[in-house]
Amino acid sequence: MKAEIITIGDEILIGHILNRNAQWIANCLTENGFEVERIVTLPDDKNVLVAYFQEVQKRVDFVFVTGGLGPTNDDVTRIAISEFFHTKWTLSRDVYNRLEKFLREREYSMSHLNEEQAKVPDGAKVYMNDIGTAPGLLLGKGNTQFIFLPGVHFEMTQLLESSIIPELKKRYIKYSLINQVVITQGIPEAYLAEKLKGWEQNLPGTIKIAYLPSPGIVKLRISGKEDDSGGIKSTIDQKIEELKSIIPEYFVTSEQTTFEQMVGDLLTKNKQTLSTAESCTGGGIAARITSVSGSSAYFKGSVIAYSNKIKENHLGVPSEILEKYGAVSKQVTENMAQNILKLYNTDYSIAVSGVAGPAGGTEEKPVGTTWITAASKYHIISQRYRFGNKRDVNTEKTIVTALNMLRKLIIEKK
Amino acid sequence: MKAEIITIGDEILIGHILNRNAQWIANCLTENGFEVERIVTLPDDKNVLVAYFQEVQKRVDFVFVTGGLGPTNDDVTRIAISEFFHTKWTLSRDVYNRLEKFLREREYSMSHLNEEQAKVPDGAKVYMNDIGTAPGLLLGKGNTQFIFLPGVHFEMTQLLESSIIPELKKRYIKYSLINQVVITQGIPEAYLAEKLKGWEQNLPGTIKIAYLPSPGIVKLRISGKEDDSGGIKSTIDQKIEELKSIIPEYFVTSEQTTFEQMVGDLLTKNKQTLSTAESCTGGGIAARITSVSGSSAYFKGSVIAYSNKIKENHLGVPSEILEKYGAVSKQVTENMAQNILKLYNTDYSIAVSGVAGPAGGTEEKPVGTTWITAASKYHIISQRYRFGNKRDVNTEKTIVTALNMLRKLIIEKK
Repeated sequence: MKAEIITIGDEILIGHILNRNAQWIANCLTENGFEVERIVTLPDDKNVLVAYFQEVQKRVDFVFVTGGLGPTNDDVTRIAISEFFHTKWTLSRDVYNRLEKFLREREYSMSHLNEEQAKVPDGAKVYMNDIGTAPGLLLGKGNTQFIFLPGVHFEMTQLLESSIIPELKKRYIKYSLINQVVITQGIPEAYLAEKLKGWEQNLPGTIKIAYLPSPGIVKLRISGKEDDSGGIKSTIDQKIEELKSIIPEYFVTSEQTTFEQMVGDLLTKNKQTLSTAESCTGGGIAARITSVSGSSAYFKGSVIAYSNKIKENHLGVPSEILEKYGAVSKQVTENMAQNILKLYNTDYSIAVSGVAGPAGGTEEKPVGTTWITAASKYHIISQRYRFGNKRDVNTEKTIVTALNMLRKLIIEKK
Repeated sequence: MKAEIITIGDEILIGHILNRNAQWIANCLTENGFEVERIVTLPDDKNVLVAYFQEVQKRVDFVFVTGGLGPTNDDVTRIAISEFFHTKWTLSRDVYNRLEKFLREREYSMSHLNEEQAKVPDGAKVYMNDIGTAPGLLLGKGNTQFIFLPGVHFEMTQLLESSIIPELKKRYIKYSLINQVVITQGIPEAYLAEKLKGWEQNLPGTIKIAYLPSPGIVKLRISGKEDDSGGIKSTIDQKIEELKSIIPEYFVTSEQTTFEQMVGDLLTKNKQTLSTAESCTGGGIAARITSVSGSSAYFKGSVIAYSNKIKENHLGVPSEILEKYGAVSKQVTENMAQNILKLYNTDYSIAVSGVAGPAGGTEEKPVGTTWITAASKYHIISQRYRFGNKRDVNTEKTIVTALNMLRKLIIEKK
């Protein structure tokens, strides 16, 4: 089943917001067996929308549209719907009551604009929105189903996940697309591709691969369309096994997960605890770890020692060591890691110190120089990295690399 | 000048990556006077690309294309370029030398795939890439200029910012589009729209507005096309002045900035310092503060007290208070804020404690309940919030609200 995603909004076209909705819908559709052929962002312009609806109707089976159902006056999706489907909007009692309850729980009362949101187009299938104000709508024209969703991210995802996708899948989807993603860490894209050249050449034609680089990580997507025999899944599994033996030091996992989730799972399983002592990442590692639900079971806390005084007074790094080796040194991160371990009484710790940039670099320690230590009561591993010149990329690489270093320490040195 | 942005890559269509490139390019083009009419993501399919290039050439003056110039085999943009422009690729000595130097500095040597990247299409204008491996390319056809950029974000932005945009702007752009964004904090979109109804109705037809909500913030974009008289700019400025008096408690700024930047600027100007004591945000506030270059001048550090033991032992929150009021309480965040202020010897501090969710809520303190305190040596302000049910949204709202609370404290209680 072919699908296209339309996100509406001048705010995307002028670059004021990131199109998270498109990514989320694309991922959700792909996982559920739809083929996303195109993602497009169009302006808040009724004529452009109606013309595009006419064009896309000839091309695909499903069109997922987000944006422009909000309560403010700059939304034109409603008018475009009226015109394209020749329909009018009527108040829905169900939507009205749901909306009123939703607002009451949040200590707000119904506004005039909210009342407008309780209207739905005649002939549309309506999907109730439990966590926001605009419902989802499905309207068919010819052989194409148009699904209209609110632009607010969490409302949109909730609607698709909990009601719309399960229903469409049951009715329309016969085969599934298999996408397996392998996470590698610590090797740039071009070098990984060199190492995997032979492996890539031996892939059967039914399997496609793609390299997906992000700071510190290269993901390798392996995909194929599953037939009745179930053969593609097992071919992909076999190819992943081969990868493990070609790049054992860089291969992380073929599960759909994140470094913070993997570390969390290991610590939960082992009933062990973690603390961090961070300089250059400024709390970024702790923030990443605590983004996982349930992290309070294994994560105790951190000292963010952005100044040397705090490294000295609160993390107990001797001033002689700070002076002799500098804050960005193996000696300092090892001291930080060992001291936070004792101070917060945890089984593991991570410590980082680096020159995040853009200023602060020297000949000997240019911007991007970073020391990372992962420690337990019995082991300590430290490594120097030379990342790049961009502050945010350096922070991200440090977070990912540190979490992977800890992951390896937990697995290898139990 | 009309522009369209094409991002190429199956990895976007299947939702495996977020299209940051499109946002960045859209913002950059808009600020420089281009009108972005559409953003589209197309698959790694040569035939689709060539057909789309033909279509878009009839529609706009500039086409910005990213992706598919990387070193791996899944990139088809190069083949599409050859076919659409009837051109072949030849090794460029300049690109080769630049690339070799770039790799040497990073302690890598030239790979076979990198050598392929030193080839450029005959007839293309080549823009050297100082921070990556693929150069930028400009090729014209008919009245349309096609600009091809690498997909790696920081290489793409660097190329556009430092060479391509300044050159195109000089040659083609005659007028400019004015976009002014007002940041509001602490009021949901629908309630803000109610308050601004009269103001909105009185706007002249030449000015457009849009509401851009994100967790904790609603931005209001006010835009208009500047004519020779310069009248639009002053009308927009006047309308912004009106806003300040309509919503003084929610109006934050009309500067293009962030809360972490505003707080940083204030502290820098006043030569004052900051520390944080975080529970539910897990270091997120500190990470946000330190994302600003130069934050080491005013940010000293944090204690991330994810467990009550650490709140007690390292932040000095008395156990009686923790027991009597619970960790999510005014008494606890005020204790945390006052203690970190003394401990790290700073002028200001922020403390937060909340039920981030999805678990941990009670009847009395449901998920989303959050206490935030901002303190100085002389003043302390605390506020309870009831955010929503989503962990990541709650974290983001807490970060933004806390930074704004501190910003107000610094401004109002000097």
